[in-house]
Amino acid sequence: MERWRGRVALVTGASVGIGAAIAKELVRFGMKVVGCARSVEKIQFSSAPFVLPQVNVVALSVCTREAYQSMKERNVDDGHIINLNSMCGHRIIPSSDIHFYTATKFAVTALTEGLRQELREAKTHIRATCISPGLVETEFGPRLFSQTPEKAAALYSQYKPLEAVDVANAVVYVLSAPPHVQVGDVQMRSVEQVS
Amino acid sequence: MERWRGRVALVTGASVGIGAAIAKELVRFGMKVVGCARSVEKIQFSSAPFVLPQVNVVALSVCTREAYQSMKERNVDDGHIINLNSMCGHRIIPSSDIHFYTATKFAVTALTEGLRQELREAKTHIRATCISPGLVETEFGPRLFSQTPEKAAALYSQYKPLEAVDVANAVVYVLSAPPHVQVGDVQMRSVEQVS
Amino acid sequence: MERWRGRVALVTGASVGIGAAIAKELVRFGMKVVGCARSVEKIQFSSAPFVLPQVNVVALSVCTREAYQSMKERNVDDGHIINLNSMCGHRIIPSSDIHFYTATKFAVTALTEGLRQELREAKTHIRATCISPGLVETEFGPRLFSQTPEKAAALYSQYKPLEAVDVANAVVYVLSAPPHVQVGDVQMRSVEQVS
Amino acid sequence: MERWRGRVALVTGASVGIGAAIAKELVRFGMKVVGCARSVEKIQFSSAPFVLPQVNVVALSVCTREAYQSMKERNVDDGHIINLNSMCGHRIIPSSDIHFYTATKFAVTALTEGLRQELREAKTHIRATCISPGLVETEFGPRLFSQTPEKAAALYSQYKPLEAVDVANAVVYVLSAPPHVQVGDVQMRSVEQVS
Repeated sequence: MERWRGRVALVTGASVGIGAAIAKELVRFGMKVVGCARSVEKIQFSSAPFVLPQVNVVALSVCTREAYQSMKERNVDDGHIINLNSMCGHRIIPSSDIHFYTATKFAVTALTEGLRQELREAKTHIRATCISPGLVETEFGPRLFSQTPEKAAALYSQYKPLEAVDVANAVVYVLSAPPHVQVGDVQMRSVEQVS
Repeated sequence: MERWRGRVALVTGASVGIGAAIAKELVRFGMKVVGCARSVEKIQFSSAPFVLPQVNVVALSVCTREAYQSMKERNVDDGHIINLNSMCGHRIIPSSDIHFYTATKFAVTALTEGLRQELREAKTHIRATCISPGLVETEFGPRLFSQTPEKAAALYSQYKPLEAVDVANAVVYVLSAPPHVQVGDVQMRSVEQVS
Repeated sequence: MERWRGRVALVTGASVGIGAAIAKELVRFGMKVVGCARSVEKIQFSSAPFVLPQVNVVALSVCTREAYQSMKERNVDDGHIINLNSMCGHRIIPSSDIHFYTATKFAVTALTEGLRQELREAKTHIRATCISPGLVETEFGPRLFSQTPEKAAALYSQYKPLEAVDVANAVVYVLSAPPHVQVGDVQMRSVEQVS
Repeated sequence: MERWRGRVALVTGASVGIGAAIAKELVRFGMKVVGCARSVEKIQFSSAPFVLPQVNVVALSVCTREAYQSMKERNVDDGHIINLNSMCGHRIIPSSDIHFYTATKFAVTALTEGLRQELREAKTHIRATCISPGLVETEFGPRLFSQTPEKAAALYSQYKPLEAVDVANAVVYVLSAPPHVQVGDVQMRSVEQVS
C-alpha cells in the first residue's frame, strides 16, 4: 500500500457501515480520504423500484464518469475505481425482498466489466474492480426491513455475517496488488452463509 | 395458441419495432391486443445514464407489478408476463456505446428470474419469460446513434440481423407451450452475429 | 419444418427418454432419423466423477467434431447442432447429489457458445443451440438415485415436471426458425419448479 | 497468515509455474508444503478433448474428495480448499484454441460453488475458494501451442501478463482472511488484458 500514501481517495457513503470502514482503513494507510454521504434516512426502501436504480446504478455511473474525467484531466494513469457490488450481483436467491436490489447489483456487475473494457480501449492503466460481499452486518438490514423489524432482527442472528472491516480489507488487497494486476472481482461471504 | 384466443394481451412499446411485430402476431392468433407506447422521440440516448434505467428497469417493474395485481384480482392463474431482454443481458461485449444499455439488461435478467421465483412462492401458475435477442433491425439503432449517423448506418449493414418478426415468433413459441411448461429465456441471434 | 423434410438427423441417446421423444418428433416431420445409443445400464452414477465427464463433455465434443466434419465434407452450410444441456448448466442448486452433473453441464454451456463462435469464424451458417430443461420425467432420476430408491421416488412426485416431448418441441422450435435465426439457448422448467 | 504457520499445505502441480510460486510463498509463511506433480510432458494438448477433463475436472474432484476426507478424519474444521480456476471459467472469449479448456474451467466454477455448499450443509467451517486469473506467463502457453510455436511466441508478447507470483499472492490473501470470511472467487487479469 506504500505507493498510495498521500494520494486522494474519494469514498462515497463514508458516514456509515462499509463506507466508513473503508475510509478508516485507507486513512490508516496514509491516504487522504474525501468522504461524502447522503442522509440515509432519505432512502425509503418501500419505494425501492424508484429509488434503488437511481442510487445503485445512475449515481454510481455518474460518480464513475466524474472520477474518470478528473483522472484524465490530471493525467493520472494508475487510478483505481472500486464499485461496491454484492453476491446478489452474481446469482438470484429465493427471497422476494431482495429481488429488486439484486437487479441493481446485476447492473453493477455489467457496469464494472464495461468500465474495465473502456479503460483498456482508452489505453489507460486505471483499474476497475468490484467487491461482491454476501451478508455484511451494517445498517443495511434494519433499513431494508424498516417496516418489518422482526425480519431485520432475524437477518443477522442466523449466522455470523461478514463485518464491514472484512470488505475494507478486500479493498486494501485489490489496491495493494502491483500496478499490472487488475483484480476485477472479489466474491466473499461468511463461511456460514448458505446461499 | 388456441387457448389464448379471445384473451387480452397488453403490449408495451406497441407502436414500432419489436412491440409492433408482437402486437400484430398476437392479433393474428385472435388475441385482444391492448397496445401502449410513449413518444420515442422523448427518449434521448445522450442522457442514457438517467433515462435508460427508468425505462428498462423501473417502468418494466411497475408494469409487471400492475399486471400481476390485475391477474390476482381477476383470479387469473395462467397468465404470462414476457419481458423483452437482450443478449446484452447475458454477456458484456466490447463496445463502449452499449455498456450502460447492457447494465439495464443484466437487471432485466435478474428481474425476470426473481419474478419467476415470486410467482412460484405465491403458488400461482403465471409464467415469467424473457426473450433475449441479439441485434434486431428496428428503429433502435438510429435512435441509439442519433448523434453519430455513420455508426447507425454501419450497424445493420455488417450482416443480416434478426427481424422484429423473429422475436414475435419467439413470443408465440413461449405462449403456445403447454401450461405446465415455463420457458424462462430464449436467447437468439442472427446466425452471422459474431459476439 | 418443411425445409427439413427428407434430411438426415443424427440423434444420440435415441433409445429412451428425451432422445426417443426427439427422434419420434423429427420422424413425424419427415426427417430421416439415425438414432444411436449406449446401453444405459453401463453408466453407473456411483462412479460419476469418472464417467460423467466422458459422456457429457468428451463424447459430446467428439460427436460435435464428427458432425461438423461430415457437414463440411458434404458442403452443408445450413446444418444444425443441438446439445442437450440443462438448467444445471446455468446455476448451481443446493443439492449435493447434483453438483458433479452440474459441473458437466456448465461445460456444455461453454462448449455450445464456443462452437457457435467457431462456426461464425469459419463463415458457415451452421447453427449451434443448446436446450436447457429443468426437471424432466425420464429414466434419469431412477438412474441417478439407483442406490437410494426413496430419493428416486420423491424426485417426480413433488410437482409435475416437464415431459420429454416438451423438450422435443423446443428442438422443433429451434429447427423451424428461419435460416438466419440462431436460437442459442432455450431455458425451460416446469411452471411449478422452484429453483 | 500467522495461524497457518506449521500447518500442512498440499499443492498439486507444484513443480512449475503457478503451483511452484504458490508452494514457495506458503513455505515463506512457515507452512509445511507437500508438493505433487505429474510429468507435464505427458499431457498432449493435441488430445485435449480426452485429457483435459481428466486433469481439470476429474482429478480436481478426486483431490478435493480426498482432502475433505482427510480433514474429516482429523477433525479439521478450519481447512481451506483452493481450486485454480481461470477467467475462462466465467466468460467465453472468441478464440477457438481455448474453447475446450474454457469448458473445463466452467466446470471448475460449478464444482467450487458446489463444494462450498456441501461444506455448509455438512456444518463445517472448511472454506472453498477458486482463484480465476487471466493470462499468466507460465509454461502453459508453450504447452498449449506446442504444435504452433508462432502462436506460443505471440501469446506473452502482446501485453504484460500476470506473473505466477500474482496468483500466489491471491492465495495468500484468501488464506489470511479471518476464519469467518470465505472468499469464494478472486477474478484477476493483467491491467492490459482486453477480453
